[in-house]
Amino acid sequence: MTAYERLKARFARIATLHEAANILSWDSEVIMPPGGGDARADQTAVLASIAHAMLTEARVADDLAEAEATAHALVNPWQTSDLRLMRRRHTRAVALPADLVEARARADSVCEQIWRVARPRSDFASVAPMLEQVVQLAAESAQALAAALDLDAYDALMDGFQPGVTAADVEPIFARYNDFLKSALPAAEARQAQHPAPMPLAGPFPAAAQQELCRKLVQQIGLDARHARLDVSAHPFCGGNPTDIRITTRYDETDPAQAIYAVIHETGHAMYEAGLPGAWARQPVGAAAGMAVHESQSLIVEMQAGRSDAFLRWLGPVLHHTFGGDPTAFAPANLAGLWRRVERSLIRVDADEMTYPAHVALRFRLERALLAGDMTVADLPVAWYDGMRESLGVEPRNDGQGCLQDIHWYAGLIGYFPSYTLGAMAAAQLMTAARRDTPDLEPALAQGDFAPLMGWLRRMVHAKGSHLGLNDLLRCATGKPLDAGDFEAHLTARYLT
Amino acid sequence: MTAYERLKARFARIATLHEAANILSWDSEVIMPPGGGDARADQTAVLASIAHAMLTEARVADDLAEAEATAHALVNPWQTSDLRLMRRRHTRAVALPADLVEARARADSVCEQIWRVARPRSDFASVAPMLEQVVQLAAESAQALAAALDLDAYDALMDGFQPGVTAADVEPIFARYNDFLKSALPAAEARQAQHPAPMPLAGPFPAAAQQELCRKLVQQIGLDARHARLDVSAHPFCGGNPTDIRITTRYDETDPAQAIYAVIHETGHAMYEAGLPGAWARQPVGAAAGMAVHESQSLIVEMQAGRSDAFLRWLGPVLHHTFGGDPTAFAPANLAGLWRRVERSLIRVDADEMTYPAHVALRFRLERALLAGDMTVADLPVAWYDGMRESLGVEPRNDGQGCLQDIHWYAGLIGYFPSYTLGAMAAAQLMTAARRDTPDLEPALAQGDFAPLMGWLRRMVHAKGSHLGLNDLLRCATGKPLDAGDFEAHLTARYLT
Repeated sequence: MTAYERLKARFARIATLHEAANILSWDSEVIMPPGGGDARADQTAVLASIAHAMLTEARVADDLAEAEATAHALVNPWQTSDLRLMRRRHTRAVALPADLVEARARADSVCEQIWRVARPRSDFASVAPMLEQVVQLAAESAQALAAALDLDAYDALMDGFQPGVTAADVEPIFARYNDFLKSALPAAEARQAQHPAPMPLAGPFPAAAQQELCRKLVQQIGLDARHARLDVSAHPFCGGNPTDIRITTRYDETDPAQAIYAVIHETGHAMYEAGLPGAWARQPVGAAAGMAVHESQSLIVEMQAGRSDAFLRWLGPVLHHTFGGDPTAFAPANLAGLWRRVERSLIRVDADEMTYPAHVALRFRLERALLAGDMTVADLPVAWYDGMRESLGVEPRNDGQGCLQDIHWYAGLIGYFPSYTLGAMAAAQLMTAARRDTPDLEPALAQGDFAPLMGWLRRMVHAKGSHLGLNDLLRCATGKPLDAGDFEAHLTARYLT
Repeated sequence: MTAYERLKARFARIATLHEAANILSWDSEVIMPPGGGDARADQTAVLASIAHAMLTEARVADDLAEAEATAHALVNPWQTSDLRLMRRRHTRAVALPADLVEARARADSVCEQIWRVARPRSDFASVAPMLEQVVQLAAESAQALAAALDLDAYDALMDGFQPGVTAADVEPIFARYNDFLKSALPAAEARQAQHPAPMPLAGPFPAAAQQELCRKLVQQIGLDARHARLDVSAHPFCGGNPTDIRITTRYDETDPAQAIYAVIHETGHAMYEAGLPGAWARQPVGAAAGMAVHESQSLIVEMQAGRSDAFLRWLGPVLHHTFGGDPTAFAPANLAGLWRRVERSLIRVDADEMTYPAHVALRFRLERALLAGDMTVADLPVAWYDGMRESLGVEPRNDGQGCLQDIHWYAGLIGYFPSYTLGAMAAAQLMTAARRDTPDLEPALAQGDFAPLMGWLRRMVHAKGSHLGLNDLLRCATGKPLDAGDFEAHLTARYLT
């Protein structure tokens, strides 16, 4: 065995361990009885610590050095990428002491359990002490990573979600968007006000019927049911592993759009995982290219395709067939009025695509301040109220509508949020290119057929794994690096013309 | 840290890893999409191999030697037991090469997946090649263990399920029982023939109503819903971990007794797990004392209490309330006629308690022959037909009713079956003692109240963990070691008088 082959075997084993952890994590959200939380936190922590130990054993550094010294022997450029990504993971891992990794995994898991109870009760006080620990441990990790990677602390965390992107990259994008929003949002509102309000869907929308419809949508988008499940959890997510993908949603019996678009969104994530290059499964180069790329895959399906005029022409009759009632409400133009509506709202996951980046910008600002110690966990509720008032002119009535609404921080995910907006921009850019390359994309969507879009994405994005980073991926697929222009053009076309 | 303390920490970590594997195993049976099987087999194998490595690292032998040399310093006899059981696990583990452990885990997992498809199709040929691998790997393991433990190969496997019991212990028990059955079974049949046939329950028995009833039964027996789930799988089982217990059953809409008694049985297992000494959680001494003891806990609830006259007096009206229909059929005496009926039948899990040991004796004989190489996997279907004809005078129409019916061998469990019959005998012995010690046991059962029985079992069995072996446990609880006398007396009282 060459050093690279030894590394390949080791990384496959580590990935297999992460697969096990992914199933346990899904189980915690969907299945586990509440009394199992303490033991689960231990299980998660032990798995994390073993995976960390496998990655940081002394012989890994030796094998990496040997493989890099003989890298000219690697005939396939994917092997070279794989080795580079192994080095990156190793650098990140050795920067962190094993006891910190284990403590962080345990704290994240416990905090997430408490959050699950606190959120519906809007009880921030009950979770704040544990969140303080989570933030403190995240800050310790960030400092250790920052030293190893020669990055700022926050950038070191962000790099773990979308390699190669820093706060300095994000700030001008968010600032430019903030300027765009200042004029675009009032203009979109004014345009909306000129039209009669859309007719609300009347219901009822029984959960069982919604679930059946959602399963159909998953199939239409192209996910293979032999390798996937659809379940219910407090916060929709896509978990599991490429051959055992687990989408979750929640059903609101007063509003089917919640579940429908959550499922469409998560199926976008799922298609990415399912389309990753199988020949490189469990290797760093075979994994997703980062969370911004992942979000681009969910958002291109949800926001670009799923809310397009073409798709609504197919979806309207399907909805009417499912739920019955007045067909007028299910007319595509009416659905567009309902589901492509800008609104200054409180809940990120319900936000329209134009105001969504403002929600992200607030979180980006607050999590940087938390991490830097410029703000305490105790300050969070008020800072959230102030931030929402300033950015969108709305204010939560309670913390459930405020700083408790998202799972991320409570699960230890700090530095993740910018990926949503970078993903939205990448999605617009990819859709522009896909439309140009694929003349039958629109007509197919109007038949509920995602195959042309998905075929293009599979070739241009999914099959690339991590062989290309965000900007190289976009360059190959669209001819240019990440650029907010297509996103603004998309919003302008959809909301201002 | 003393050597014993280091060992405690290590064994806790190993147990935590096994907890993770237990959840994945449950998930495979209940949740996993079929396409996830290959990846799951890898995950299971990697976890097994890591746990094995943790147990066999060189420093464990050093710590064991040091802890044993200073064992006089252990003030608590439970610590002494714990150390003894650590040594036993270590001896078993070092006897097995890591690649064999991993290969076996993978083969067992793959074979079980194939079995799940093969069983309903009665397609033995499709699973036979994989079963050959499973048997071959089990035989290799058995030989390695036998050498380390100075036992016969089959005994070495059986010792992994119920420590300290050998085929030589089981043979005379099975032979004696075979003699008992020769006269008892015809006598019971003759007595049954003298009475009019019981009135069948008319139905319908919708799965949802059965499930609700089963949840109620779990509660009546005393399991805490905050720490338990009830789901559906092909073969009922009790999985998970002491604070996250997962019972499964299956619902036959023509016969509610299937699910009811499966759930009562599995809840007996669950109560044992939940009642293990929390102070010794994740330590060898805090674990269940073996599978025969485990079966005694399911069978005392299912067969001894759950089919007693007293409990049927409570259950009858509850069933009538649940399913409606003619109340005569739900009269306790009619239920006793239906559910305490001896019958020469084909399916072990449906067998009455008198003929059940004959099913086990066949499996005991065949698995010993398979392991010894005296028989091949290809011989199994015919040997099964012959065995059933000889022992009970019935013959399966297909392999689904024959050698495909049980999950055990296909999941690599060889040497397990005798535990069922030893457990049935221990259950009768424990129930005799519990009745003697607990005057309110019967009156409470007639109210659907298991608390007196469960209180006694918790004190005399559950709380002992593995501190006492099978025979010492029985000596403390009942005044004598395992003895088939109480079981025969129980059957004589129930079926022959």
